[in-house]
Amino acid sequence: MTKVNLKMLANELGVSISTVSKALQDSYEISPETKARVLGLAKKLNFQPNPYASSLRRRQTQHIAVIVPEIANNFFSLAINGIESVAQEQHYHVLIYQTHDDDQKEIDICQHLQSGRTDGVIMSVTAKTQDYEHLAKLNEQGVLVVFFDRVCHEIETAKVTTDDFLSGFNATEHLIQNGARQIAYLSISSLLSIDNKRKAGYLEALHKHDLDIQPLHIVHCGNDEAHAYQKIKELLSLPHRPDGIFASVETLAINVYLVCQELGLRIPQDLKVICFANLKTAALLNPPLSTITQPAFEMGRAAAKILFRNLCHKNTPAQNETIVLKSTLVPRSSTAKGDG
Amino acid sequence: MTKVNLKMLANELGVSISTVSKALQDSYEISPETKARVLGLAKKLNFQPNPYASSLRRRQTQHIAVIVPEIANNFFSLAINGIESVAQEQHYHVLIYQTHDDDQKEIDICQHLQSGRTDGVIMSVTAKTQDYEHLAKLNEQGVLVVFFDRVCHEIETAKVTTDDFLSGFNATEHLIQNGARQIAYLSISSLLSIDNKRKAGYLEALHKHDLDIQPLHIVHCGNDEAHAYQKIKELLSLPHRPDGIFASVETLAINVYLVCQELGLRIPQDLKVICFANLKTAALLNPPLSTITQPAFEMGRAAAKILFRNLCHKNTPAQNETIVLKSTLVPRSSTAKGDG
Repeated sequence: MTKVNLKMLANELGVSISTVSKALQDSYEISPETKARVLGLAKKLNFQPNPYASSLRRRQTQHIAVIVPEIANNFFSLAINGIESVAQEQHYHVLIYQTHDDDQKEIDICQHLQSGRTDGVIMSVTAKTQDYEHLAKLNEQGVLVVFFDRVCHEIETAKVTTDDFLSGFNATEHLIQNGARQIAYLSISSLLSIDNKRKAGYLEALHKHDLDIQPLHIVHCGNDEAHAYQKIKELLSLPHRPDGIFASVETLAINVYLVCQELGLRIPQDLKVICFANLKTAALLNPPLSTITQPAFEMGRAAAKILFRNLCHKNTPAQNETIVLKSTLVPRSSTAKGDG
Repeated sequence: MTKVNLKMLANELGVSISTVSKALQDSYEISPETKARVLGLAKKLNFQPNPYASSLRRRQTQHIAVIVPEIANNFFSLAINGIESVAQEQHYHVLIYQTHDDDQKEIDICQHLQSGRTDGVIMSVTAKTQDYEHLAKLNEQGVLVVFFDRVCHEIETAKVTTDDFLSGFNATEHLIQNGARQIAYLSISSLLSIDNKRKAGYLEALHKHDLDIQPLHIVHCGNDEAHAYQKIKELLSLPHRPDGIFASVETLAINVYLVCQELGLRIPQDLKVICFANLKTAALLNPPLSTITQPAFEMGRAAAKILFRNLCHKNTPAQNETIVLKSTLVPRSSTAKGDG
């Protein structure tokens, strides 16, 4: 099959090569209509710019993009600060994009970034991302991609994660050691790599301690706050309600606290709670919240360092390496051995 | 004085007009060295592109930029979500930039955005911004600017704020009504419009209730966490320590809680605390924190709506209007009448 080039696109559309090139660069000189025609055909024919052109582009934007589900999330905002600390050293600007966990938004952003607005992308996928074509395309178009935390294993590139399986195991075993026997797991999405690893660690700890797995105690809460609150309230209203909760993300733990207030349940006497969190106020809550704290800032730095290292070797694809950093279990009163 | 144009810049630098134009557009076709020369001279001669060119550019980027001090701040992340909700309706992308309260970083970002990467900018200035030239330039170059919260009154454009004076007054009077007599004010920067208005409201409430102003009780904590902690610790270690604190931002209130833990002071018995905050965990703290809650999401929406309204009337400068939204005082246990 002949490789599609700029000239073929130009002939097909009846415009000049320069127009096609500028349209692909999202130049202000080209009308939105023409851009749409060019991008449409380029997509249809799976056009890939030549490596020299894209490496030239790469050298020039002085921008990297960060795509995260939410910035109103301590983990992601700290990770972004880590990324920025490296970018600043390299005299790069960081463009921050939010998907709000909307996979269509993620696709839009990625398509947009293919046009050469950035040298590289550091990202955490949405909780709904099932199709990876837009991520593969970015990579193919010469935009370097590095994943962190919510990674996509199907794409061959660098990834920075934490030891999610071990942390899930440790969190659950911590609850068991402090007296909990009916432990629930709160998930946000079974599509997420990190969620599945944390859950696998939870299941392994139950298995090690000969505790039964209660299907009703594994709750998919999703990302919608009101929905999550309702799911947690149902869980804690069960005839055989859990005496321990391991929440995969901090917003779920905050909702557990709120539901306990509503239902008059005492933490830790009636329910022990631990969660993944980078909450600044964890130690000030009533009671102080036990956490698995991820090295968010360091993860951002690690991802950015890999990206810039790869940008220096432009014609080599990013290595399919995974860097795993360690999280820390910080026990506080919410999991204390109680008189419950 | 002759107006500087592209041709003059090109002649002076010995390059083509097209090169100058592309350099000013931050095109990938131009080397970083040439860009630096062009931008340097353009800045020196105060070059302003013609309105038609910039209006053309405006129509084309489909991007707006948001510049905030920190995204790891509930107020700003909620405001950004409000901005994005409007941008999404308009099929625009939002580029988020952080200054980390570094005025030089703000200048860099603004200079960069002059090159036509965005149709408009919504921003909150840093706590160190004293010189407004970079903001005036953005406006002059045809990039629409709308300020929110931390506004710059010197620039003639639209601004969205809250009723900071009244909120400061109400917060202080709330402390007085609940029994506090020695009330301290924690500031982040006397350069900030909002900080000064909140402080003026505080002073007015003291005046109304015939309470003396104690210079030692007005503390400039700054943005560095460790420094703020130290300043608060000094304040609460004074022989005549305050019995009430009004903190201008939420991070300072969190530090007050931490210092009280260290010094063994009880909230609210020994010290009543209220602050501006959009903390999701305010009601879960020990004790629950009384807050002045700004309508952050709505402020973001209001600022974005003004921006897009003005983008539709490209050759009219943005009106010098100020929209003031109301904050809400939410009393919780941290300011309860106590037996202190």
